[in-house]
Amino acid sequence: MKVAVYPGSFDPVTNGHLDIIKRSAKLFDRVIVAVLQNQSKSPLFDVEERLELLRVVTRDVQNVEVDSFSGLLVDYVRDKGIHSIVKGLRAVSDFEYEFQMALMNRKLNTDVETVFMMTSSEYSYLSSSLVKEVFKFKGCIKGLVPEEVLGAMVKKYRD
Amino acid sequence: MKVAVYPGSFDPVTNGHLDIIKRSAKLFDRVIVAVLQNQSKSPLFDVEERLELLRVVTRDVQNVEVDSFSGLLVDYVRDKGIHSIVKGLRAVSDFEYEFQMALMNRKLNTDVETVFMMTSSEYSYLSSSLVKEVFKFKGCIKGLVPEEVLGAMVKKYRD
Amino acid sequence: MKVAVYPGSFDPVTNGHLDIIKRSAKLFDRVIVAVLQNQSKSPLFDVEERLELLRVVTRDVQNVEVDSFSGLLVDYVRDKGIHSIVKGLRAVSDFEYEFQMALMNRKLNTDVETVFMMTSSEYSYLSSSLVKEVFKFKGCIKGLVPEEVLGAMVKKYRD
Amino acid sequence: MKVAVYPGSFDPVTNGHLDIIKRSAKLFDRVIVAVLQNQSKSPLFDVEERLELLRVVTRDVQNVEVDSFSGLLVDYVRDKGIHSIVKGLRAVSDFEYEFQMALMNRKLNTDVETVFMMTSSEYSYLSSSLVKEVFKFKGCIKGLVPEEVLGAMVKKYRD
Amino acid sequence: MKVAVYPGSFDPVTNGHLDIIKRSAKLFDRVIVAVLQNQSKSPLFDVEERLELLRVVTRDVQNVEVDSFSGLLVDYVRDKGIHSIVKGLRAVSDFEYEFQMALMNRKLNTDVETVFMMTSSEYSYLSSSLVKEVFKFKGCIKGLVPEEVLGAMVKKYRD
Amino acid sequence: MKVAVYPGSFDPVTNGHLDIIKRSAKLFDRVIVAVLQNQSKSPLFDVEERLELLRVVTRDVQNVEVDSFSGLLVDYVRDKGIHSIVKGLRAVSDFEYEFQMALMNRKLNTDVETVFMMTSSEYSYLSSSLVKEVFKFKGCIKGLVPEEVLGAMVKKYRD
Repeated sequence: MKVAVYPGSFDPVTNGHLDIIKRSAKLFDRVIVAVLQNQSKSPLFDVEERLELLRVVTRDVQNVEVDSFSGLLVDYVRDKGIHSIVKGLRAVSDFEYEFQMALMNRKLNTDVETVFMMTSSEYSYLSSSLVKEVFKFKGCIKGLVPEEVLGAMVKKYRD
Repeated sequence: MKVAVYPGSFDPVTNGHLDIIKRSAKLFDRVIVAVLQNQSKSPLFDVEERLELLRVVTRDVQNVEVDSFSGLLVDYVRDKGIHSIVKGLRAVSDFEYEFQMALMNRKLNTDVETVFMMTSSEYSYLSSSLVKEVFKFKGCIKGLVPEEVLGAMVKKYRD
Repeated sequence: MKVAVYPGSFDPVTNGHLDIIKRSAKLFDRVIVAVLQNQSKSPLFDVEERLELLRVVTRDVQNVEVDSFSGLLVDYVRDKGIHSIVKGLRAVSDFEYEFQMALMNRKLNTDVETVFMMTSSEYSYLSSSLVKEVFKFKGCIKGLVPEEVLGAMVKKYRD
Repeated sequence: MKVAVYPGSFDPVTNGHLDIIKRSAKLFDRVIVAVLQNQSKSPLFDVEERLELLRVVTRDVQNVEVDSFSGLLVDYVRDKGIHSIVKGLRAVSDFEYEFQMALMNRKLNTDVETVFMMTSSEYSYLSSSLVKEVFKFKGCIKGLVPEEVLGAMVKKYRD
Repeated sequence: MKVAVYPGSFDPVTNGHLDIIKRSAKLFDRVIVAVLQNQSKSPLFDVEERLELLRVVTRDVQNVEVDSFSGLLVDYVRDKGIHSIVKGLRAVSDFEYEFQMALMNRKLNTDVETVFMMTSSEYSYLSSSLVKEVFKFKGCIKGLVPEEVLGAMVKKYRD
Repeated sequence: MKVAVYPGSFDPVTNGHLDIIKRSAKLFDRVIVAVLQNQSKSPLFDVEERLELLRVVTRDVQNVEVDSFSGLLVDYVRDKGIHSIVKGLRAVSDFEYEFQMALMNRKLNTDVETVFMMTSSEYSYLSSSLVKEVFKFKGCIKGLVPEEVLGAMVKKYRD
């Protein structure tokens, strides 16, 4: 069975992420969306909230599950017995950064393979941080994130 | 009448900015140079000082005026009834970032159009932050910023 | 009155070109779509056919007209008394080429200014040559070119 | 069963291609290496020779087979009932071109997905055309192509 | 005598740096590896430790010496009577940043020339910060840094 | 003695080339400007004319000489006992192409080192082919090529 990990911060998951999740779920028998627990950043949603939002928005995609990890991605995939990592590419700057990470990951774990998918053109300008920036200044982010994420952001800022 | 906004931090305005201002003033009937009030950064000059420097260095360009704004650029231009944003491009990295912002801004406000102008080749390496870095270590920034800005920087560091 | 030239081969005009034409027509009082007569290429449509197709697909945009030119673009705009050139950018490779041409054009004619507009993300992969390649192998180009262009291509290949 | 097509000219297959073939064979249940029959180029090896060389150099990779196609790639994969295309990326220029092609292919066939793999860093400078250029001027291409390809090239130029 | 400065943070020196040092030592009569004293960052190794590690790993390269500097690089090279700066390039993003710095440095000191060397492909993904990140999460950095640096990092984290 | 080769087509030599020649002549004890004899192109000037023009425009730079070669650059430098190649970089697209060539050349000849210099910003848009294109359509190329080259081009087209 072909299993892949789709790692990221997902703070929060955007429609661009969701598009990659759904498309990768057709390429692999199973896809694990893995939230990185990164202690050095101050996130909008904590890891538990991000996992819950990911579960909700992927509930209709049968072969997708949600998990979190800390430390090196190559260690996480080795522990899980997985050999494939999925990443989305939007632009040249993504490409160069991800190229560097993919080469480093192959050095650290020669059994691991990173595959790249192009972000759909309608989401090419989308990132979690830009979504948060726009929302903070009361811009409309409808269509950029799933409905459930929008609800959670409204609730988060109201509280 | 065709009006455009040229937004930025302008901390401080450089000769590269001034070149774009003068050239965009030939393209549009009126150009508003708009200083972003960004609370999260610690600027060299406060917004009032930046506005004053911009007024001084653009005093000979009749159809240019100076303003400041906070929040989203698309809201500012909508409130002003303006449909055009001017941005300068120096390099590929600028291009990718500005491409992302232009697409996001069109999503947020379909009436707004971003037009790009190439920075003159003699200013292609110039940025406000690099100017401040060089000045801080006593490098010569003559020719990189207008005379009045140089004077203000000398005064600022002497105080 | 602010007039701009939008130059190109337009062999044939695509929906990506048409998008730039309509958006530039809002930025300028008048836009001249100028077909380059380039003798060294073997085009699908001759210049007269390209002009006719451009006229048809822009008939609803009042301040757009269609023309052709040979030789240097800077000479054409000088003869017309025009100071602005409009170009669309799709990707980094466009950016670098157009940057080079814009700097050369300013060297040849210091009165001319090139302004760049971002191609809409849904057309970012579109070019006249790719459209012709796809059509030649019987791929569906509906949505990539205006209806009238599709009709002309069908007719051209049937003859 | 997850099947992917790895398309190309393979004139001739290089060690960079072979690396992608072997790595993609671990990601998919079956990989079809598909030689494009492109009549407009004057190749070194004809399609039959290229197929034969591919068969020889992939004989130890069980789930790889070799085929050829003409026309549009999206039509070929549709006829085969395949939904995945594999492409290797070496550099930013590859990335932009392949991005354009992947978006066009998804427009032409929404069921098809292109996945990208990074070329191993030791082959990042390798291309079939560069190999032919070096060989033509008697440079040593040992290590750049499989032994069998080297033999075929020697034979081809001697004849 | 042709002398060049190879500036950097070297926190710590990697095998990618060492490769550039050895190759530049063949190009110039003498190479000075110059550690920037940058007070604003919180380094892993202090300047004295970095100098000592550089001395150890370059002890077999006769025409290399090690030094540190603060302030502007152009002032440092002017004080030393040096006219050449060596920089390594890994990727497009390096290229754009270094291009900007090289042009600024020539503006500040017209006698100074920056020459660029390509990082060997096996080190194209390597940076001091990535090495530290991997090490922090107990990844294996053998082969990425000289043995002596690995020893120093183990000691540093154990203490 | 440190000797470098600066290879190219030089059809014709531009002020951008001349700038690199003069600056590299300060970095090395001797610089050989080497014209590639490329039979497959139809040049404006033949190799003898290009050599003569190079000799004329470099007559004041004492440590520069002019030569031509055919075949692989790495063979030429090996025959000459030279270990350094100089190349100028203008833009990202140059960078990627030259990166590929530099890696291939090191594979073919491990003793050879390519060093890169940034083209001065005022020549960043300049290429021999663009100069010929502009001249062909009667554009002014004064300032883009040395006076002697301009004279030779006028004579060439008049004949």
